[in-house]
Amino acid sequence: MLIIFNNEVTKILRIQYPIIQAPMAGGVTTSKLVAEVSNSGGLGMVGAGYMTSSQIQEQAREIKKLTSNFFGINLFVPNEFHVTDHELKTANQLLKPFREKLHIQDTDDVEIPDYKKVVETFHDQVKVIIEEKIPVCSFTFGIPSREIIHELKQHRIIVLGTATTVKEAIEIEKSGMDMVVVQGSEAGGHRGNFLEDHQESQIGLFSLIPQVVDNVSIPVISAGGIMDGRGLMASICLGAKGVQMGTAFLTCIESGASEIHKEEVLHTPEDQTIMTRSFSGKWARGIKNRFILDMQKSEESLPKFPVQNTLTKGIRKAATVQKNHEYMSLWSGQSPRLAKKQTVKSLIESIVEESTLILSNK
Amino acid sequence: MLIIFNNEVTKILRIQYPIIQAPMAGGVTTSKLVAEVSNSGGLGMVGAGYMTSSQIQEQAREIKKLTSNFFGINLFVPNEFHVTDHELKTANQLLKPFREKLHIQDTDDVEIPDYKKVVETFHDQVKVIIEEKIPVCSFTFGIPSREIIHELKQHRIIVLGTATTVKEAIEIEKSGMDMVVVQGSEAGGHRGNFLEDHQESQIGLFSLIPQVVDNVSIPVISAGGIMDGRGLMASICLGAKGVQMGTAFLTCIESGASEIHKEEVLHTPEDQTIMTRSFSGKWARGIKNRFILDMQKSEESLPKFPVQNTLTKGIRKAATVQKNHEYMSLWSGQSPRLAKKQTVKSLIESIVEESTLILSNK
Repeated sequence: MLIIFNNEVTKILRIQYPIIQAPMAGGVTTSKLVAEVSNSGGLGMVGAGYMTSSQIQEQAREIKKLTSNFFGINLFVPNEFHVTDHELKTANQLLKPFREKLHIQDTDDVEIPDYKKVVETFHDQVKVIIEEKIPVCSFTFGIPSREIIHELKQHRIIVLGTATTVKEAIEIEKSGMDMVVVQGSEAGGHRGNFLEDHQESQIGLFSLIPQVVDNVSIPVISAGGIMDGRGLMASICLGAKGVQMGTAFLTCIESGASEIHKEEVLHTPEDQTIMTRSFSGKWARGIKNRFILDMQKSEESLPKFPVQNTLTKGIRKAATVQKNHEYMSLWSGQSPRLAKKQTVKSLIESIVEESTLILSNK
Repeated sequence: MLIIFNNEVTKILRIQYPIIQAPMAGGVTTSKLVAEVSNSGGLGMVGAGYMTSSQIQEQAREIKKLTSNFFGINLFVPNEFHVTDHELKTANQLLKPFREKLHIQDTDDVEIPDYKKVVETFHDQVKVIIEEKIPVCSFTFGIPSREIIHELKQHRIIVLGTATTVKEAIEIEKSGMDMVVVQGSEAGGHRGNFLEDHQESQIGLFSLIPQVVDNVSIPVISAGGIMDGRGLMASICLGAKGVQMGTAFLTCIESGASEIHKEEVLHTPEDQTIMTRSFSGKWARGIKNRFILDMQKSEESLPKFPVQNTLTKGIRKAATVQKNHEYMSLWSGQSPRLAKKQTVKSLIESIVEESTLILSNK
């Protein structure tokens, strides 16, 4: 129908519309969500960064029962980290008042991640993706080794990277990946920057898309604040070949985000999200709450990802169970006013409908 | 030719293309630049925030000799400020090493602006705009009094406001202004936020445009990182009716920006701009340099605009004369890689040409 949707991205990913559901980690991307996106003409993605290889295997098999279309899995490229006992003690001290408020026990004895183990898990994750013949594999937080990219491609798996600047996009193209997702400063959740610091990597999509497009030849997919047909068509005008949408899918019926998270996104204005590294040790955009504000003065000195993420796990879990939004990580992009509670099918249909309308009005 | 350009904005502003040249203050918007934009089918604007009423009168008359088309003038709405002797002393102390480096004298005796006088100047500026029958008047840093808006409109002057959030855009519509310029976080130069704090007001255009469009009924003009036909068409897809472009005009032959400023913009990648309040006391986006980095740790505590602006005037001036880019305020949006040294006519023609191409490819 829409000739503009007939491009490299839809051809390579074998999808009807150039719409990728962002691989949100932490339970949001249920098999039902992922399969429904792929069944509705987009590309469903599992946010598997925190998953073990057997969990990935299990979910991949479940999704295959629900759809025969392409879908993908996203992994976190491990970034080296070290943490001293002193840093851990300081970080736990900062978290103590929150644990008390939520009536959960002090967890000084929580199992601190070890870099070597994280790398091992990553290799197991890649292995299962190959074994399960997952059609698409995307990466965030960096570029995996040449060997991994080569092996994935040998198995005809389509490989996507995530960039926040032109420099990162160029490196992704050089590494041999097939496409690059460019993440604008509008995006919710974790920042994908890996070559540059947090400040440098906060480029708005209006600037990021055309400058990346001018500097790489692989297809560019835009991500950040895109919620509807307007965002899709604007991305295409700027030179992207497709979009990756997170927050728009997060509030869908099929998403595994907690009801309280969905409700918070549905009732937040665009000026109430903020970048924080207090939840995980990596910068991420979420809805401003007590935890973020109280931790703000200390956030620069917290342990790196995934250490801080492990330390706050109990707090985030207890807050979710207690339906206390003040201590949850309520990831959201900068367009929460455009979020709706609807089915995946109706979201995708309305994007396509709106895109057609925009085209016919030109 | 392009039916999409036939909208409220082009009709009301009597322009051929919905392209407004951003009113950059501080000498960038020469009469030649402004007139050339208006003669090429866009709307030229004078950044008159720092000008006296007689300077405005003089330039307005000069522009009228160069074009018979509509053009506009932008004013800064005064924001209340106070400064203590102690604050001044501390601020001057911080500037001392820079003055020494540039071999300029200590200027403890510089004339510190007084809020009452700033308000008087503002009223004189408005008066001359009415007397000179300037077709368009835009405001930044706030909303002027109902009386001023009423008087301007009675004299058939078209009034534009600047917003950085949905809340600010709604207030601008309520105030009776005719259109609203929405400034995304990508934008170079001073931030226009006036109801919300700096952090809250940094919304990327992909998020800002559609959320404002859904909440106001006056035409929306988008600003921030827009440099070419791609940015114009993307803005229109998101619901804007026109664009305001700064950096793209700053590097034009006709612009009054210093050669060193133009060269810096032309050779800076997209990740090297930063928000700073060290130059003026108001947050603004410019190219990272020694002055910004050295002042960074103190910037939250500096005197408010325009006090800090007055204190750094000598430094900025001397640095410009000495062609030392490390101590100049090199305002730039987040798309410097798209900047070109060209005439205004060729910039506008290429925007229109590219827009036509994008449309025909859909």
